[in-house]
Amino acid sequence: MPKVTIAQNILAANEQIAQEIHCSLAARSMRAINVMSSPGAGKTTLLERTIERLRGRLVMGVIEGDVETSADAERIEAAGAETVQINTRGACHLEAHMIRDAISELELAKIDLLVIENIGNLVCPAAWDLGEDTRVVVMSTTEGDDKPAKYPQMFALSQVMVVNKVDLLPYVDFDMQKAKRQALAINPHLHIFELSCRTGEGLDNWCDWVVTFARGAG
Amino acid sequence: MPKVTIAQNILAANEQIAQEIHCSLAARSMRAINVMSSPGAGKTTLLERTIERLRGRLVMGVIEGDVETSADAERIEAAGAETVQINTRGACHLEAHMIRDAISELELAKIDLLVIENIGNLVCPAAWDLGEDTRVVVMSTTEGDDKPAKYPQMFALSQVMVVNKVDLLPYVDFDMQKAKRQALAINPHLHIFELSCRTGEGLDNWCDWVVTFARGAG
Repeated sequence: MPKVTIAQNILAANEQIAQEIHCSLAARSMRAINVMSSPGAGKTTLLERTIERLRGRLVMGVIEGDVETSADAERIEAAGAETVQINTRGACHLEAHMIRDAISELELAKIDLLVIENIGNLVCPAAWDLGEDTRVVVMSTTEGDDKPAKYPQMFALSQVMVVNKVDLLPYVDFDMQKAKRQALAINPHLHIFELSCRTGEGLDNWCDWVVTFARGAG
Repeated sequence: MPKVTIAQNILAANEQIAQEIHCSLAARSMRAINVMSSPGAGKTTLLERTIERLRGRLVMGVIEGDVETSADAERIEAAGAETVQINTRGACHLEAHMIRDAISELELAKIDLLVIENIGNLVCPAAWDLGEDTRVVVMSTTEGDDKPAKYPQMFALSQVMVVNKVDLLPYVDFDMQKAKRQALAINPHLHIFELSCRTGEGLDNWCDWVVTFARGAG
């Protein structure tokens, strides 16, 4: 079965590069977060708000993954973080070799925390280790409370779940308890934040966690 | 480069099965729609509302693609359509051989239109022909107006774009003109519907198009 063998080789090669990235960042005591979600759940806006709120407390370097356009990287740069754009030109996830190349473009000495914003995709990115210390899955209240059950791998392999757009709860059919219950059934260790990037609700708790995490705790 | 060769072989094999499906449906004068979107854009709800509204006018057979769970198929069946569930167990898109197997489970003689609900993913499903006559991409106002520019292949290869959740326009930063302009820049032939499955706004126009399409026009 050459298909399976080659797929395994590709994943094994990815795993090795991810391990190298992980060790090289650890040698600098730098931690990395891999942020994943559906398209439009609010990854970029969450990073914008986080960078703005932590200005003076924490310097973030951001690797922006997109299929096309550099619009997100421009937003992140405008928010005040050093940014590298990866355009995958059709590919549905980031791979470790892309991160290795992107890291070489960053001035790591000036950065306290590395953040990777993955391609908007709730399926494929879960399979690819990027050398990160932790995975954050962002979901939004407008996507429906059934997403953890329907895309379990992403929630099983993440350490943190952010439920964004809680300001829209009055206008959508989203059962927060059901979503959390389903997510915790898949992964009892998930750390969950409920927030709204639009109103700012819940952002302080999230930002405190980011700072604690960047300092090696959390 | 075995990786590329094998990927091409897989796509070529898919294309051949898709062609067989297409011809076999055409021989019955049956048309097929492939519905694609991000997770949570509202594909299943759109199909539920469409089935309910067209009761007595059009009998739909629905192939439900999900990574896990049969929750969507149960909703579609409750709405009144004959339904077959495909669970891909981790795979990020439907392939033609899955559709061929699913079609064999449907009583085609009782069906006027075949609808395939793809995996919630705005990237990978675009590459896989399922033998459909037309592709419908659903996006929602909560995902942001930049999705056509950021995921261009899906919009380039679709014939119809549905913008769902227009009832939430007052509460989100979504520029409808920008979204439509970007989508039409990628694909000037896109037929665009703006609607809300929650309030029913715009559903009549959409349902009229579905009926016209099923009858071989449109």
